[in-house]
Amino acid sequence: MVFMQKKFLKKNSLKEGDFAEAVFQGEKFSGTVIPGKEAGMVFLKLKSGYNVGLETAKIESIKKISEGQKVSKPKAFEIRQNTSLPKISILHTGGTIASRVDYRTGAVYTAFTPEDLMAMFPELSEIANFNSKLIRNMWSDDLRFRHFGVIAKAVQEEHSKGAQGVILGIGTDNLAVASAALAFVLEKCPIPVMLVGAQRSSDRGSSDAAMNLVCAAEFIKKTDFAGVALCMHSSQSDDLCAVLPACKTRKLHTSRRDAFKAVNDTAIALVDYKTREIKFLKKDYQRKSKEKFVIKPNFEERVGLLKITINMFPEQFEFFSKQKFKGLVIEGTGLGHTPGHMPDEITKKAHKGIFPAIKAMAKKGIVVMTSQCLFGRVKMHVYDKAMDLVELGVIPGEDMLPETAFVKLAWLLGNYKDREKVKELIGKNLRGEINERTPLDNTVEGQ
Amino acid sequence: MVFMQKKFLKKNSLKEGDFAEAVFQGEKFSGTVIPGKEAGMVFLKLKSGYNVGLETAKIESIKKISEGQKVSKPKAFEIRQNTSLPKISILHTGGTIASRVDYRTGAVYTAFTPEDLMAMFPELSEIANFNSKLIRNMWSDDLRFRHFGVIAKAVQEEHSKGAQGVILGIGTDNLAVASAALAFVLEKCPIPVMLVGAQRSSDRGSSDAAMNLVCAAEFIKKTDFAGVALCMHSSQSDDLCAVLPACKTRKLHTSRRDAFKAVNDTAIALVDYKTREIKFLKKDYQRKSKEKFVIKPNFEERVGLLKITINMFPEQFEFFSKQKFKGLVIEGTGLGHTPGHMPDEITKKAHKGIFPAIKAMAKKGIVVMTSQCLFGRVKMHVYDKAMDLVELGVIPGEDMLPETAFVKLAWLLGNYKDREKVKELIGKNLRGEINERTPLDNTVEGQ
Repeated sequence: MVFMQKKFLKKNSLKEGDFAEAVFQGEKFSGTVIPGKEAGMVFLKLKSGYNVGLETAKIESIKKISEGQKVSKPKAFEIRQNTSLPKISILHTGGTIASRVDYRTGAVYTAFTPEDLMAMFPELSEIANFNSKLIRNMWSDDLRFRHFGVIAKAVQEEHSKGAQGVILGIGTDNLAVASAALAFVLEKCPIPVMLVGAQRSSDRGSSDAAMNLVCAAEFIKKTDFAGVALCMHSSQSDDLCAVLPACKTRKLHTSRRDAFKAVNDTAIALVDYKTREIKFLKKDYQRKSKEKFVIKPNFEERVGLLKITINMFPEQFEFFSKQKFKGLVIEGTGLGHTPGHMPDEITKKAHKGIFPAIKAMAKKGIVVMTSQCLFGRVKMHVYDKAMDLVELGVIPGEDMLPETAFVKLAWLLGNYKDREKVKELIGKNLRGEINERTPLDNTVEGQ
Repeated sequence: MVFMQKKFLKKNSLKEGDFAEAVFQGEKFSGTVIPGKEAGMVFLKLKSGYNVGLETAKIESIKKISEGQKVSKPKAFEIRQNTSLPKISILHTGGTIASRVDYRTGAVYTAFTPEDLMAMFPELSEIANFNSKLIRNMWSDDLRFRHFGVIAKAVQEEHSKGAQGVILGIGTDNLAVASAALAFVLEKCPIPVMLVGAQRSSDRGSSDAAMNLVCAAEFIKKTDFAGVALCMHSSQSDDLCAVLPACKTRKLHTSRRDAFKAVNDTAIALVDYKTREIKFLKKDYQRKSKEKFVIKPNFEERVGLLKITINMFPEQFEFFSKQKFKGLVIEGTGLGHTPGHMPDEITKKAHKGIFPAIKAMAKKGIVVMTSQCLFGRVKMHVYDKAMDLVELGVIPGEDMLPETAFVKLAWLLGNYKDREKVKELIGKNLRGEINERTPLDNTVEGQ
């Protein structure tokens, strides 16, 4: 008789998540029961990390060894100290780098404590003395501007306790945006702050967590770099990590371990995982210093990002001024364009109001143009349609990523009351977010 | 004495745009006066396409040869027929491929007529007999859904007049989106429709217009491909053009000639500009046939695209149901995520309402999830935060580009009254917009 797994488990007083031992064709298998929907099969995750599917008809016996694991409550902790090694702090906010599979649902959820992290990556303890602290246990999607002040203060605190550098574990979904936001908040930052994530959860064989953490730690230890940067896989192989610029990096793949790429910029460094060498290091970067931290945690909350498509309606633009937004980043097409230039009999009615809405928003707040091409630079003096937008008050965002322009605008509006000052600074390079000359070779490959 | 160009021109009864002849240190230079702001210099665009800056102090004489060019009114026309060659039609809607610099302002505006196009690219006449028609003279940003029906009917008409294929000139800003929209509208299309644009205006030496047009024409002539595709530069060199899939291509650079890349897919073909060979041709593509055109021009007008950022407010989601949108494509983070999962004391108030707003929209209309990573696939069964969204009614958009999902959703809602049918079809591959297995090697390079 063929059972679905659930029924089979129930019959044997088991549930998903339990640790069980089965005898299958004379052989013993023990592991965690994981979800499975194939009729006549039961699935175990073995200690090796492999999953095994056993035909229930051929199972001689199966019994529960222990109940499904409970998640322990995270707390601060300190590991053994080796005085010959430098001090590095790991601050943690959640995300895949500290996530595990929920065997009840098959989904991944954030659960690991910093202790788990250190226990899982024993190689770290040979690099430095680590202090670890869980600031939050949250998805990066739930970050709000106010969190960056909290994080920045925690960085400063770790430094005051002697940390030579900080590794910040954060969800990859907004890892790049968070690094840009932190770069603005940390106006002066005498130590390195390396944002690290993982595309595969830490309890999987294919996890990139260990290598990203190790490379970040080696980079802190072996260079005099200071300021905010990301450290993630540079290729699909487990060979090199790239240290990427805080304001010019983007997640460009949903699942690949080398999803993070510098856009309109180059990597700051490459770290060899095997040899632990710094393979490449840019010449111009901010150095460690004795200067004090300057933290500017303020952001204007009401800032939006509007991605342009064809067939838009004036209401989609009017929304921002009506809802009292103070800033708007437009993710325009090409060199920095929107609909609304040249009405014909089809566009006439639908377009009426788009330009007036942009003008109204630019009058009440600040409107910045970026490009959905991501690579390349906004140029608003090439086509008359963009010149019209500049006339309406739209400010060209140069070669900034839309997401970076978004946090920069919110940060500027939060820190400068003088509107003209904000307008002036938005197009000026403050944290490496604008390159005066975009490297032409930096683009996508692979068709 | 040092003059600014304007003053110098005025003094010599010249203006920008005029064709002038200057004697400079004994040498004659003739060309169009182009805008320049360097003190003590005057700039000419020579016939060779090069610009030359002349020190006004060293100019012995300068005189006007002719007034600035006037733009002639476009009209339909037919060129000389060679019965041994196939018939190809060029339909034109505007954009850089038919644009020229306005020397009064220094900006580029669309002006060339189809006659100009053919006169500029004489090599075309050796490939085929061309018929050419200006459908619109518009920026691609001003495209609305209704334009695609107009374009599709024009394609059908050209075919009825004997065209073996159609080249459609269109602005690059929305070239990829337009090709996706046309692919849906042309439910059955027995001939090739090649969308072609140019990143540099046709009167510049560096223009990519000629090569893109020539390669598109050669591809139509030398293969049995049918359906919609793009033809654009494959690299920065003028060597190969790539024929790219209509629904899986994106403009990924603001200015590079090879800005267009297949995302989560590969090129259909490569065309060698010098040898005119088809260097590569995929095995699985739609072939030319005798079947009739089936045009489905309907789109639901009220469809939006919402790009997710951190720090969003419920109003940004509520907007779409309140404004009676029937469809919404969310460009989520990572594998398909939004804020609103895990409130802490900072997010609590701001997040309240995001999930209810998504639910309300999913109840009234259709909500589809795509990823702002662009590369890779939405997977909503990995993290509990995405599972929550699926529970609210959000439909995973697989590996579709956000822009493609946007036109597909609008097209489905315009053609299927049955809501369940739309929900079913959105995740199914209709025009190559979804690959069941995303090629893993297709990603960005270049850090």
